[in-house]
Parts: sequence; C-alpha cells; structure tokens
Amino acid sequence: MENKETEINELGEFGLINHLTKDFPLKNPETKKGVGDDAAILSFGDKDVLVTTDLLLEGVHFDVRYVPLKHLGYKAAIVNFSDIYAMNGTPKQITVSIGVSSRFTVEHLEAIYSGIKLACELYGVDMVGGDTSASVSGLVISITCIGVAAPEDVVRRDGAKPTDIICVSGDLGAAYMGLQLLERENRVGQGQKDFQPDFSGKEYILERQLKPEARKDIIEELRKEGIKPTAMMDVSDGLSSELLHICKASDTGCRVYEDKIPIDYQTAMMAEEFNMNLVTAAMNGGEDYELLFTVPLTDHEKIEKMKGVRMIGYVTKPELGCALVTRDGAELPLKAQGWNAFTKE
Amino acid sequence: MENKETEINELGEFGLINHLTKDFPLKNPETKKGVGDDAAILSFGDKDVLVTTDLLLEGVHFDVRYVPLKHLGYKAAIVNFSDIYAMNGTPKQITVSIGVSSRFTVEHLEAIYSGIKLACELYGVDMVGGDTSASVSGLVISITCIGVAAPEDVVRRDGAKPTDIICVSGDLGAAYMGLQLLERENRVGQGQKDFQPDFSGKEYILERQLKPEARKDIIEELRKEGIKPTAMMDVSDGLSSELLHICKASDTGCRVYEDKIPIDYQTAMMAEEFNMNLVTAAMNGGEDYELLFTVPLTDHEKIEKMKGVRMIGYVTKPELGCALVTRDGAELPLKAQGWNAFTKE
Repeated sequence: MENKETEINELGEFGLINHLTKDFPLKNPETKKGVGDDAAILSFGDKDVLVTTDLLLEGVHFDVRYVPLKHLGYKAAIVNFSDIYAMNGTPKQITVSIGVSSRFTVEHLEAIYSGIKLACELYGVDMVGGDTSASVSGLVISITCIGVAAPEDVVRRDGAKPTDIICVSGDLGAAYMGLQLLERENRVGQGQKDFQPDFSGKEYILERQLKPEARKDIIEELRKEGIKPTAMMDVSDGLSSELLHICKASDTGCRVYEDKIPIDYQTAMMAEEFNMNLVTAAMNGGEDYELLFTVPLTDHEKIEKMKGVRMIGYVTKPELGCALVTRDGAELPLKAQGWNAFTKE
Repeated sequence: MENKETEINELGEFGLINHLTKDFPLKNPETKKGVGDDAAILSFGDKDVLVTTDLLLEGVHFDVRYVPLKHLGYKAAIVNFSDIYAMNGTPKQITVSIGVSSRFTVEHLEAIYSGIKLACELYGVDMVGGDTSASVSGLVISITCIGVAAPEDVVRRDGAKPTDIICVSGDLGAAYMGLQLLERENRVGQGQKDFQPDFSGKEYILERQLKPEARKDIIEELRKEGIKPTAMMDVSDGLSSELLHICKASDTGCRVYEDKIPIDYQTAMMAEEFNMNLVTAAMNGGEDYELLFTVPLTDHEKIEKMKGVRMIGYVTKPELGCALVTRDGAELPLKAQGWNAFTKE
C-alpha cells in the first residue's frame, strides 16, 4: 500500500463516517433516508423498511475473557433490534455473519448462535441469512437487522422542536459500570487459578453490560398512549453523544438536568467504589440501549403516567446550545465522547 | 473459554452453516425464505425484498499486498449485487461496515469507498448505512445488499426440473487463474525493490479476479426474451459446488459436458503455464460471478440466440446423480470443493 498521510483518529468516528459517505448521492426512489440515523429508511410498496447493521470485533467491541459467548450472541442481536425500535419500527429479520479463527470450536459457535436464537425468540425476529467463515485473527460478528413500519409511524432523529420535552427510558450508566467491574475482576484474577470474582450485590450492572434488552415495551406503551415522539434514538454511545446527534439533526439546542438523570443504586455504589464521577458515567458511559426521545409539551401528562420513562430536560432554540444544568444551576456544555478509540496494532 | 471438542473444519463450511442455523424456525409472515439461497426473500406489502450479506476478512478473503483497495471496494460491492441478480431481482441499497487497524489511513479508506461508490454508480445502487470502526487485526469489510423484485419474478435455486437445460453466462476459471498469477508474482517479487510484475497478455484474467462484474446485462436480456429461469445461482464457489446446490435444493441430478464449459483463451494459457488441470480450474475455481441457471427445454431456441450464454448440460432425475461428462464419454461425479479453509491462527 502507498504511504499516505491522514491518521484515522484525526477525524474521529463520526467525522470519519461523514467524510467517507458524503459523496454518495441517493438515486433510487426506494431510498428515503440513507446514512445518519439509527437505521436507513427504504420504501417498498406501502411499507417503510428499516435497515441497520453492526460490526463487532474481538478486542475492540468485546473481550471473550469475560463475556460468555451466549451473552455475546444475545447482545449482538439486541443492539440491532434496539436500532429498529429507535425508529419506532418492529424488527422482523436479521442476517448473521461470523468470522472465527481455529481456536474456536463448533461448541463455541453454538453458544453464540444460542444467544442469538434466544434474542430472536423473545423479540419475534427471524434469522434469514449470513454465513460463517474462517478468520486469521479472532472473532468477528456482523449482524444486519431489517424492520418494518407504516411510513407515518417512523420517527427520525431530526424532528425535535424547541419546547419539546426530552425523555429517557430506564436508567443510565449501569452497563458502563458493569464493564468497569468485569475489567477489574479480570485484572485481579489474572494468573490466579480457581479465582472466583465477587459479583454479589452487583448483578444488575453486570446484567446491563452482558445481557442488555431492547426497549420494545416502551415502544408499545408509547403507541398505546397515542404518543408519537418527534425525535428518537437509542442510547448506545452515551446520553451526551445522542443528545448532540438529535439537536444537530433537528437544528435545536437542549437543556438536561443533572438531578433528573435516572441512575440505579448499584451504578452509584460502583462509581463510588471506583472513585468515578457518577454523572460522567451516566452521561457518557454508553451501551445503555435505552430510548431517548422528545415529545411535544402537550404530551406532558401522558408521559408523567408512564412507568420507566423520565423527563430529563427540554429542547431549545439552536443558539442556546446543548448543556447539562448541574445541581447548583451551572450550565456545562455537552461533549460527545462517544466511542472513538482507533487502537494501534 | 471452555475447552470443548469439535473442530470447525470437521463440518466444512456448508455443513457448519446448516448445523448452526437448523434450529431457527421462521415465525414472521414477512419472511418467505431464510437461509439457503443467494439471498433471503422478505415480503413487505406487494414487493419481495431480497437481502444478502457478505463478510470479507483480510488474510482469508483478500490480500492487500496485491489487491488495490479501490478494486477491493468495487469487488466487495459487486459480489453482493451478483447475489441479488441471481434471484432475478434488482439491487437497490447497500450498507457497508468496515473495521480497520491503525496501519490504515483515511486515504486507504477513501480508496475502498471510491471503489464501492463506482460500483454503486454503475449498478444504480444507494449506499444507505454502515459504519467504520477500529480493528486490532487488519481489515474487515461487511456488506449487506437489499434488492427488490415482483413476487412472481423471484427465481430460487429449488425450481429445476428434469429435462431443463443448464446454462451459464460468460466463461469460467479466469478469476481463479488470475489469483494464481497474482500470488506467483507476489512471491517472485518479495524482497525485490522496484520489482515490476509482468502481466502483459494476461489482463483479462487479472481483471476477472480484481474487478469482476455482476451480470445485470444477462438478467435484463432474459427478461427481454421472456425467459424466466426455473432455478438460478451466481457462481461464487465454483460451478461444481453451485450445480450441487441447485440439484440438492431441486431434488434432481444433472449432466454437464466438459466440452461445453466456456473457458477463455487466457485462462487456458495460464493453466498450461502453471501445469494445472484446466477443467478443474473452471469447475472449482470460483469467484466467476457468472449466472448459472436452468430453463425449460422449450426455451432452447431463445437461449441459443443469446450472446454470452452457453448451454452446458441438462437436469436429470435425482437418482442419476450429478456428473461431468468428459470428452471421452466418461462420467465423473461432481464434488463440491467450494471454499473451505479454516486456517490455523
């Protein structure tokens, strides 16, 4: 290969995707929306077809030393379902391509597929294709998910309007703290035969990291309550990052309140044990797979009645920027930390 | 990970996929056909939506020492388009996920994307999603292609009937011989500064390996002639392997004639230079991305008039098995060599 100049980490993850995909004009009437949302929106007949894809690489996105392979398969499927729900759609099919090196056996692959199968069963999704091939360097999992929605139901990330209420489901930061715990116990246990990590009282944050769920239930409840969000995303890279995406796409600003951010007790305990800033973990930890969405002010009362949904702030005009309002009333500009590590070989 | 027992290469590529996917029942009415054809067939509204996916791994599916990155991008897109054409559909969208390690620069990624873009332009396909992430171990390219067809137009691999004529487009074995040439020149050139490989008179086989095309033209011509194949596949793993797939899925046998297999002059010359069996290269080389299809006997005259399509044999009852009839009239049972190398780390 020629020796050229721009290192990839100079552009960052999102900058890189934008840079590489900006010259791809869309030509087909069957394409409504390409790059730039949780899923692409395709139009076939009277249906909108949603497509999302995720590439998971060993040593970057997961570590088989402490992630059971069945959980890995489950999570790989779930994160794709989550992207379809985040468009207010229903996931219908997935394809699964796996690359494995020879240190993996058929039983290892069976474990991965059993996790995928369980996820498919619970969420009513069909596995329709893909393949398994050799890899010279560890495990590679690529999943594409296809979903469907009536065109009028699809929710993009670009529809937020000033005065809209910002809502988030569940709680945040737990998956991140679960990862910190797994990594610590892995370090502590290294070289010790029969080492048994102590996870008691920390089951919730572990489960959030190892076996997350997609918020199908929230989508169904919103529909039942007659609420259609103006914008929606799932929280995969962290609340700060997703808020910035919605505000950029919608050309708005936002204010979210530190004391409204939903955080579980175990997450808080773990952050204290690690001497980490709890709000930073909740705002930037990522992998929560909760739904972040905006609704018109008029839906205030309906949202208030919904269990498992918290109102955390509101949408503003763009010139006000995006900020976290701290407990003492200070405004901290939101920063996207996202996932941005291009590691050295 | 636990130490379990079955090595992956014990099952082989196709055996492995069958084994891992056999317990996934299809549940959704929107799924017409899952694993087991060139693409999955989904049904949304009045359209059939076709989905195919391909995972390409450095060191297994390609070698960046002799494959220019733009060509790599082009080919990665083309092989997916080819799968959609092989269902008699029209490719409409692709998603592209790329994993790269830090030895790749932004310019390298630009080269890959420029190849993908060229393929998209020539075939009228939109790039609608995907992402770029870090990899700790070389280049990973995962492409999913979505196509569309009227339900009555879709051609599967399971519709061949005894007495149907077996046809193939273009010629076979050239891509395989091109790969042999590239690998040889790479070996010869190793350690030699300013080494210039000699490719003169071998441009065709190189192009077949580095920049294959999908046979959109054949699909269009078949449609113009009013021919709907009874079964169809693209030749990616080799003619023998694909014939066995069609015959297994259709519950038939087949006879193909050695002297009818279309082979280009450069392919023959190269096989002679390498002292390789030419028919083996054409039957098992793979990566031809030609269309293999069967038509009713009544379409004989129409096919005869089509340029670039050769009749190579006929479909039989299943009990007759699948065989190549040699020039001297002997019958050699077809064997699937396919791509089946699970390499050691």
